[in-house]
Amino acid sequence: MSGSTFGKNITITTWGESHGKALGVVIDGFPSGMDLCEEDIQAFLDRRKPGTSAATTSRKEDDLVEILSGVFEGKTTGTPISLMVKNTSQRSSDYSEIAGYYRPGHADYCFDKKYGFRDYRGGGRSSGRETIGRVASGAICSKLLGMMGIKVCAYTKSIGDVEIDYSKFDAKNILATPTAMPDQEADKKAMELISKCRENEDSIGGVIECRITGVPAGIGEPVFDKLDALLSHAVMSIGAVKAVEIGDGIKVSRYCGSENNDEFVIDEIGTVSKKTNHSGGILGGMSDGSDIILRAYVKPTPSIARTQSTINR
Amino acid sequence: MSGSTFGKNITITTWGESHGKALGVVIDGFPSGMDLCEEDIQAFLDRRKPGTSAATTSRKEDDLVEILSGVFEGKTTGTPISLMVKNTSQRSSDYSEIAGYYRPGHADYCFDKKYGFRDYRGGGRSSGRETIGRVASGAICSKLLGMMGIKVCAYTKSIGDVEIDYSKFDAKNILATPTAMPDQEADKKAMELISKCRENEDSIGGVIECRITGVPAGIGEPVFDKLDALLSHAVMSIGAVKAVEIGDGIKVSRYCGSENNDEFVIDEIGTVSKKTNHSGGILGGMSDGSDIILRAYVKPTPSIARTQSTINR
Amino acid sequence: MSGSTFGKNITITTWGESHGKALGVVIDGFPSGMDLCEEDIQAFLDRRKPGTSAATTSRKEDDLVEILSGVFEGKTTGTPISLMVKNTSQRSSDYSEIAGYYRPGHADYCFDKKYGFRDYRGGGRSSGRETIGRVASGAICSKLLGMMGIKVCAYTKSIGDVEIDYSKFDAKNILATPTAMPDQEADKKAMELISKCRENEDSIGGVIECRITGVPAGIGEPVFDKLDALLSHAVMSIGAVKAVEIGDGIKVSRYCGSENNDEFVIDEIGTVSKKTNHSGGILGGMSDGSDIILRAYVKPTPSIARTQSTINR
Amino acid sequence: MSGSTFGKNITITTWGESHGKALGVVIDGFPSGMDLCEEDIQAFLDRRKPGTSAATTSRKEDDLVEILSGVFEGKTTGTPISLMVKNTSQRSSDYSEIAGYYRPGHADYCFDKKYGFRDYRGGGRSSGRETIGRVASGAICSKLLGMMGIKVCAYTKSIGDVEIDYSKFDAKNILATPTAMPDQEADKKAMELISKCRENEDSIGGVIECRITGVPAGIGEPVFDKLDALLSHAVMSIGAVKAVEIGDGIKVSRYCGSENNDEFVIDEIGTVSKKTNHSGGILGGMSDGSDIILRAYVKPTPSIARTQSTINR
Repeated sequence: MSGSTFGKNITITTWGESHGKALGVVIDGFPSGMDLCEEDIQAFLDRRKPGTSAATTSRKEDDLVEILSGVFEGKTTGTPISLMVKNTSQRSSDYSEIAGYYRPGHADYCFDKKYGFRDYRGGGRSSGRETIGRVASGAICSKLLGMMGIKVCAYTKSIGDVEIDYSKFDAKNILATPTAMPDQEADKKAMELISKCRENEDSIGGVIECRITGVPAGIGEPVFDKLDALLSHAVMSIGAVKAVEIGDGIKVSRYCGSENNDEFVIDEIGTVSKKTNHSGGILGGMSDGSDIILRAYVKPTPSIARTQSTINR
Repeated sequence: MSGSTFGKNITITTWGESHGKALGVVIDGFPSGMDLCEEDIQAFLDRRKPGTSAATTSRKEDDLVEILSGVFEGKTTGTPISLMVKNTSQRSSDYSEIAGYYRPGHADYCFDKKYGFRDYRGGGRSSGRETIGRVASGAICSKLLGMMGIKVCAYTKSIGDVEIDYSKFDAKNILATPTAMPDQEADKKAMELISKCRENEDSIGGVIECRITGVPAGIGEPVFDKLDALLSHAVMSIGAVKAVEIGDGIKVSRYCGSENNDEFVIDEIGTVSKKTNHSGGILGGMSDGSDIILRAYVKPTPSIARTQSTINR
Repeated sequence: MSGSTFGKNITITTWGESHGKALGVVIDGFPSGMDLCEEDIQAFLDRRKPGTSAATTSRKEDDLVEILSGVFEGKTTGTPISLMVKNTSQRSSDYSEIAGYYRPGHADYCFDKKYGFRDYRGGGRSSGRETIGRVASGAICSKLLGMMGIKVCAYTKSIGDVEIDYSKFDAKNILATPTAMPDQEADKKAMELISKCRENEDSIGGVIECRITGVPAGIGEPVFDKLDALLSHAVMSIGAVKAVEIGDGIKVSRYCGSENNDEFVIDEIGTVSKKTNHSGGILGGMSDGSDIILRAYVKPTPSIARTQSTINR
Repeated sequence: MSGSTFGKNITITTWGESHGKALGVVIDGFPSGMDLCEEDIQAFLDRRKPGTSAATTSRKEDDLVEILSGVFEGKTTGTPISLMVKNTSQRSSDYSEIAGYYRPGHADYCFDKKYGFRDYRGGGRSSGRETIGRVASGAICSKLLGMMGIKVCAYTKSIGDVEIDYSKFDAKNILATPTAMPDQEADKKAMELISKCRENEDSIGGVIECRITGVPAGIGEPVFDKLDALLSHAVMSIGAVKAVEIGDGIKVSRYCGSENNDEFVIDEIGTVSKKTNHSGGILGGMSDGSDIILRAYVKPTPSIARTQSTINR
């Protein structure tokens, strides 16, 4: 069954395996007339690229994006935008050893049960490289949203038990620190933790937080296509994410209603806002005009250097 | 934009407002030949009904389901199954007072911003009564899954800070206790907490846990339609849910890879299983043959008796 | 597999069998704020009703529509509009005889092969009564289109070999004649033909023509969701339609390019139009600003009084 | 709005413009385990290629297909199959002249009205080259269908008023004649007609007929997703098609029911078939076990050498 397309007005369809010829995405339904060039996208892909920082795996790839369609004389035409990133290192020999057994924490076993066999090179379709298509689409949509006054800001909130201190939050650090933490001190501690894990031939999980500002009230549909439901679908579909929360999220299960309800207020010129934002900017599945806040809980990468026991095919 | 339909092979389309003539659901794509009668569905709707237990609101409704199509001579025909529950108490006068202002924690403001006006009676489309269509569909799908050896078991895991003790877990209690907790002692404490909240004219949140047994490995699609992504979409689209997690969920963000990876084992007759189930039965978006475990974090109902300040239209 | 939903921005989901309790439709995504009452829809259902004219079958039904949701204080709310028509004559005894064999020209055999069994009463889901949901949705959408200056006018172009004469076209006749022909003379001849067929215990096919005026240029998507492709999907999904054409349709296969190309012209105030309209108002899948013209070729009803040979189950 | 994806279980998403870098298609949901290589697809693309025969335009392109994903060790993996054909001749200077005006019979004007501007090179997204993605997908699906015993055979039935004579039908001619006609004599006459048109700086329309054998009864959904409705959607979405018919198609509008109904018969070993096939293999939207027969009526290419009058932007 098909399942590589997401979205309704704008749809994205991703394709490609870790060690195939290339990976890419087709973005359909994107409005016409927006300036777009490869550089707009490349900046985001460069941030995604493993090996850019000391915090991630050391695999090196160029990941140069090509716009194959949908842009004419520097502007989007309204027709599908096809993006491709060629795989430069396709040496599948690296992976021949794992072809025979099921790695713990990986989808190897599930692929074999579902499809009868699998592309065992680097996780195939379940590789982290699958996010190339998402990041590239995100770059383009981000530009469009920016033109509408909507800003998406995501960063690392915690790694293991090292959490950022919001009083030291500086957005500039997000791009500057190897952990993408907005707090330099937390970043330093997190890097130490990562080093220790690596020495132990181990990995560590973390939390990503995302804050979206400038969304007008009333976006999202009241029932199945609630804004938070669609965001959860999208975020949970990223490999390694095991939990998603909106606003105060899991904490609300211990709240009383009087604590959790955000009071509406109105200023002298008639602007409606909320005194607090426990709701994370979404009420009844629709944006309420406050910042949208969501968090993704990410499991530690299952690929670790230490010996683990498992079974073969 | 449309947004009241969910699913791909089997789709459900819900309709109806809290105080309209009726609420219902159309289930399309359901296989032919399964025995089905109103009683199969009514049992689930009776459990859903508020006022059945002391733990919930006191509104009384009959909520009798009618099968309007898709069943012939006691069997499903493969064509759309249309289900309807008439609203017996439509006295909208009860709600005339709230028509003018925006209740904290409710979607009133969002509806007005999105649609220009709203059906203010009892939350309209955002009422808890919208779940009638989901519960009715769930009853039917549950019967089909049961015939395939798949069992879905959901219960209350915690209310406020009162949590169940798994050593006292008895599935029979789920239907017997007013809180739907499988642990009678926890149920008693939770009921006390609820009473106290009610005395304070307040409400309290909680956590629902769901365990699905018997799902063969390989169900779910590897990218956007990951099994966990679709479950998150569905669960987060239920009013009042603010977080969803799979397996060890939020905890994995503090785990090391060596803790989180589940080892595969094989027994003498060749059955593959996992030593542990941190993954909650899903790896790479596909079922891995273990029990699927998910949790929904539910906010306290925003409708509380105490006075709150807000603004009017 | 599901297949009872049509549309993207506005979706309609129909349900119901000829002799079930009721038939209906859920219209999702319809804009809020439009005045709507049962009378708006009933007028269209009354025209649809068999037995209204001498030209059709004599079955009598009331077909009263009820709005169950999506309308509040006389206006659409933006949430799903659920419409239901109860079946008043459910005497399935009429049909018990046909349960055992496969009627020529009917879907009986296909239903049995697809689903294992069928609701044999009056064609079940394949009954002409299935169009109740379409006509009711059409009534509502027609009102919305009318507010945008778009008019949909459909009429009978021919019955057997009796064709209308466009020089005698009078739109008032469409509602006044039993055949829905805009030409009274043709109507008279067609009624004679129908009588003769009925005497012979036979039926006769015909052609419906539809002209849509006021559609601005640029509606429709350039590839799979071409406006003509979507219209063909919709029209061909009506029972008994065996061919669909746009503009000059089948004739273009014998044209030269120089005959078929419509020249663009511009008037002194800058309005673009076409000298001719061979294209039927659609070029490259998008409306071109001219009237949209389409035709549906309808087979004779397969239910005829005369004896035919067939096989039983 | 998106509109470049077609299908449900298997979806195809096409992208690319006539004179962009490349054109391609992503095929999602295709089953795993089928042998697939570039040659399987190239054979179909070579037939599609203009300039292969004297009957079509003289533009020369290589149109070499590359499989970028979804195939591993020579077999489909069940994940998206991405196919790309690079454009070798992108000299847009050829088209600079037409950028300023609206060609009769082309979508130029509609693009400008819809998107504000257009890729004017060779029709952009509305170019005949858009069918590359369809043909490539068709090649792959055709192989899968063949393994299930289903054969799709399409050929030219008529060009202008030159029609094939079924008594001279020889399937081998379809690939051998420049017109893809199965009747060599008709082919010769059609080629003469095409020459005459070309001398007159003109073009000519035609009819394509398609016969699908081996489809079991019961395929297709009874309401909106009728098999004939989906086929019509697909066929009408091909540029230049202005009418689609199933079985006896337009002729049934003049038939009596007794002529049009196909009698069911059963042989001594219990095989059900129909004495005639007026229905074209589809009843009530579901396959009836007979050959499926459909026809597409194609307009003459609007690009003709002779001078036409039109307007500029």
